Amino acid sequence: MRQATKQLSIATKGKGLYEFTGHVESWLQEQQMTTGLLTVFLRHTSASLTIQENADPDVIADLNDFFSRIAPEGRHYRHSCEGPDDMPAHIRAALTMTQLSIPLVDGRLGLGTWQGIYVFEHRAHPHRRNVLLHLIGA
Amino acid sequence: MRQATKQLSIATKGKGLYEFTGHVESWLQEQQMTTGLLTVFLRHTSASLTIQENADPDVIADLNDFFSRIAPEGRHYRHSCEGPDDMPAHIRAALTMTQLSIPLVDGRLGLGTWQGIYVFEHRAHPHRRNVLLHLIGA
Amino acid sequence: MRQATKQLSIATKGKGLYEFTGHVESWLQEQQMTTGLLTVFLRHTSASLTIQENADPDVIADLNDFFSRIAPEGRHYRHSCEGPDDMPAHIRAALTMTQLSIPLVDGRLGLGTWQGIYVFEHRAHPHRRNVLLHLIGA
Repeated sequence: MRQATKQLSIATKGKGLYEFTGHVESWLQEQQMTTGLLTVFLRHTSASLTIQENADPDVIADLNDFFSRIAPEGRHYRHSCEGPDDMPAHIRAALTMTQLSIPLVDGRLGLGTWQGIYVFEHRAHPHRRNVLLHLIGA
Repeated sequence: MRQATKQLSIATKGKGLYEFTGHVESWLQEQQMTTGLLTVFLRHTSASLTIQENADPDVIADLNDFFSRIAPEGRHYRHSCEGPDDMPAHIRAALTMTQLSIPLVDGRLGLGTWQGIYVFEHRAHPHRRNVLLHLIGA
Repeated sequence: MRQATKQLSIATKGKGLYEFTGHVESWLQEQQMTTGLLTVFLRHTSASLTIQENADPDVIADLNDFFSRIAPEGRHYRHSCEGPDDMPAHIRAALTMTQLSIPLVDGRLGLGTWQGIYVFEHRAHPHRRNVLLHLIGA
């Protein structure tokens, strides 16, 4: 049984979903494990993680619309020091995930056929988002 | 220290919550571990996982109502190729969980007294949902 | 490779966020591990876990407002045996997290600079909330 860790940096360009399944899978292949548990952890409070369908870009656009509707930008927040997109970002992060763990079985990540791993950026401006990967197994 | 994995298939019959705590616990007993970490991962993007109170069916019905209200079916989505329940399903999945990890302590799963593990089905028609279990411990 | 577990009890005084990052980190230091995976699991269905910015108390107040707005107390729920805050508590729990796993790298918990771990209390009255910690690593 052994462990491996890695930090990825994902560039984002405003609100939306940014897939990085490929980055995770190529690092995983280098580790040459058969069975294990991969954990993906996002080190930010104004972005988050989500697993979504990686086939249709309309899903991504509709998701963005939904979150803009339930947590709109506006003047009704106390916390606004970093701009009107600041507090909605924290709400969107609370509603989604900061961490994901995915089993590794027979040398393959256990994602379903249509599942992709995304950084969900909640701020309007470009950022670099740090993602920590942890793998334990054999 | 060792690992075990298993795939479960849960039958669903339309939107709602389907408890499978019993399936998980009987597989766990066969593994005969004392301390460990159990991970439950759902391999779909139009269903999700949730831990809820397993005592009162009204909780389940009220939860369903809530999600139908904040992510209603309708004509306002771009993505609708699989029907009016398609995009709301993705939104409901983004708002809940795709994965759950629960510690195993003294040979027992660490769930609280009222906690049950559910597949949260977001599509209107029956499906079979694949759940991956991973256990690591001793 | 080894494991450690611990149960924490967090006192809450009504709806809101209660940080316990310090409790987790002091227990972690006693374990003297370099690399590992820490899992935090909440044993309740009317409270949850969240990672939020630990700098500005306004974020906490705005988050509370948001959840009171999308899942308001009222007479429209079937499940109300424990009072008007009962069903909204279950909804708020479903929308946030019951469990969190955070990698341990170079002897430090992988939280970002501004990230704190909180119990998110959804009931109006004081409670004691049980949190299970599980650590695996070396």
